[in-house]
Amino acid sequence: MEVINRYITIKAHIDGAPKESDFELKDAALPLRVDPDTNLVIVKNLYVSIDPYQLNRLKSFSSSQSAINFAAGVTPGEGIDAYGVGKVVVSGNPEFEKDDLVVGLISWGDYTVVKPGVLLRKFDPLGLPLSYQVGILGFSGLTAYAGLFDICKPKKGEKVFVSAASGSVGNLVGQYAKLFGCYVVGSAGSKEKVALLKEKLGFDDAFNYKEETDLKATLKRYFPDGIDIYFDNVGAEMQEAAVANMKAFGRVAVCGVISEYTDAGKRAAPDMLDVVYKRIKIQGFLAADHMNVYQDFLKKTCDQLSTGEIQAVEDISDGVESIPSAFVGLFRGDNIGKKIVRIAQD
Amino acid sequence: MEVINRYITIKAHIDGAPKESDFELKDAALPLRVDPDTNLVIVKNLYVSIDPYQLNRLKSFSSSQSAINFAAGVTPGEGIDAYGVGKVVVSGNPEFEKDDLVVGLISWGDYTVVKPGVLLRKFDPLGLPLSYQVGILGFSGLTAYAGLFDICKPKKGEKVFVSAASGSVGNLVGQYAKLFGCYVVGSAGSKEKVALLKEKLGFDDAFNYKEETDLKATLKRYFPDGIDIYFDNVGAEMQEAAVANMKAFGRVAVCGVISEYTDAGKRAAPDMLDVVYKRIKIQGFLAADHMNVYQDFLKKTCDQLSTGEIQAVEDISDGVESIPSAFVGLFRGDNIGKKIVRIAQD
Repeated sequence: MEVINRYITIKAHIDGAPKESDFELKDAALPLRVDPDTNLVIVKNLYVSIDPYQLNRLKSFSSSQSAINFAAGVTPGEGIDAYGVGKVVVSGNPEFEKDDLVVGLISWGDYTVVKPGVLLRKFDPLGLPLSYQVGILGFSGLTAYAGLFDICKPKKGEKVFVSAASGSVGNLVGQYAKLFGCYVVGSAGSKEKVALLKEKLGFDDAFNYKEETDLKATLKRYFPDGIDIYFDNVGAEMQEAAVANMKAFGRVAVCGVISEYTDAGKRAAPDMLDVVYKRIKIQGFLAADHMNVYQDFLKKTCDQLSTGEIQAVEDISDGVESIPSAFVGLFRGDNIGKKIVRIAQD
Repeated sequence: MEVINRYITIKAHIDGAPKESDFELKDAALPLRVDPDTNLVIVKNLYVSIDPYQLNRLKSFSSSQSAINFAAGVTPGEGIDAYGVGKVVVSGNPEFEKDDLVVGLISWGDYTVVKPGVLLRKFDPLGLPLSYQVGILGFSGLTAYAGLFDICKPKKGEKVFVSAASGSVGNLVGQYAKLFGCYVVGSAGSKEKVALLKEKLGFDDAFNYKEETDLKATLKRYFPDGIDIYFDNVGAEMQEAAVANMKAFGRVAVCGVISEYTDAGKRAAPDMLDVVYKRIKIQGFLAADHMNVYQDFLKKTCDQLSTGEIQAVEDISDGVESIPSAFVGLFRGDNIGKKIVRIAQD
């Protein structure tokens, strides 16, 4: 049997903010069979993750990322791997059988031929939506959890600021921090997002950064006594303003810097005098280094989902063909919560 | 009995690079007596420390420093406290007696009236020069030791880069790191300093940053496989270049940023994509928070001094009147090693 596999690729490396026209939908015939000793697995993709960091892979080669597997550069014309959920169609790997639900590195397409050694594992959905595996129970969740607890090591009562707080990671950081006993303020880019944070997700406060002209003064208003923890998803001026408003022994977890992704000249230049005198720690991290907290993260998050204490905020589009607009929208702030594309119904 | 106490002060707050004319030598009569219940101690100053960070106290008010005692702003016309060694002349404090040798927060002058609560303690010179208390066995030494071992947590064989490497702290960081088993390269601002690092202090390599036009390329040349630890004494472009050349899990200890002290507009803007993907930690610190390693530091350093494994590099001027030129010279890179002014012979 043979299917037509439609997949998304880039026409050329992307420079600056991505446009839908940078992408194209290609297709190719895919025979649904694998030789038994190849260890190949063909997966029908169900849900794929749409993440800002992918943009860095679509640019020309960046040496800083070359050492990281999932951040390796993408070649124009070829398929783009992405975290997601699928169902095994054919398996040449004894670890997988037809119809196994799997999560791992699949692709922005209808099907993925997963090579041995690539991250892929079976999972039990535990009665929860399959899409949760891509967001709250996947790397978005682990990133929020590990960044907050492993990197920032919060104490109850500490003041936490989260930027891009309605984004896939930010909304969870705020919810985790709040449930842990911190005071949490988030920034986001629209009234609707601010309302979500304050009214649905339990943030103590939130503001629309687009309505602010002096971020240092803004943060001084929301944190008159200073910030203990800044979970940075945006970089640039927001990081500078947060550092300026930090308390002694403040911690900045740098998860991503979306405002810098589309503008190579944009940088955060925090005042190092603040960094020294206030003994501030600015630390970059990747969730994959924190598998030590994975079981803890999964158990707590599943528990909190079942009691309704934590909420999964998802923004789901349908169909392979919607991937370019879903991705491009990330950089316009279109998404609320985790951006996911549903490739096929289970 | 009464003496004339000569002391250094500033005429006005300093903006930009300090000049000798920003300072003046004043004098005042000082009666050498204290009432018994005041807990005041009059100290004859012997050696005082001349440190770049003092410039930040001589500027207009900086909020980031206001919380730190020894970094509090200095009022024009008034005396300037500084770390140093002296001898008790009169004591109204039962903890001190006449002729006790003391180390602590004294002043840029002939005498200091030390108030209760101010850092001051007796010490035994253990046969070593008194000036060592101000440098290698004082905060310079503890800063180097704590910054390297407590903040950067080196492993044997790791690659360490130190800027301002012939300075008071930098030279010790390099010596400690080398003795610990790291590969150490330092940057400094003259041929003479570079020779000292390579020929006398055991650095594996060193370069004159003034002869380099592209610091990123320079560091790539000295660290073709990347930097594990950067001990930052200068900030700005050097920090950016170091971050660009770091390995995964690299650590930057920000001890001071001398290149930024004289230019408020100068900033380090390290690439946050490097910080994230290479999981870099950039951490400011102050030695005073690391008293937990003090005994260990003191014992190891005294042992290494006695075996000749480590060397105290001092740059000593004489007389209160030499303080302004000694201080101003720090920002021109005049000093080699720890800058100290000898106020009086013991």
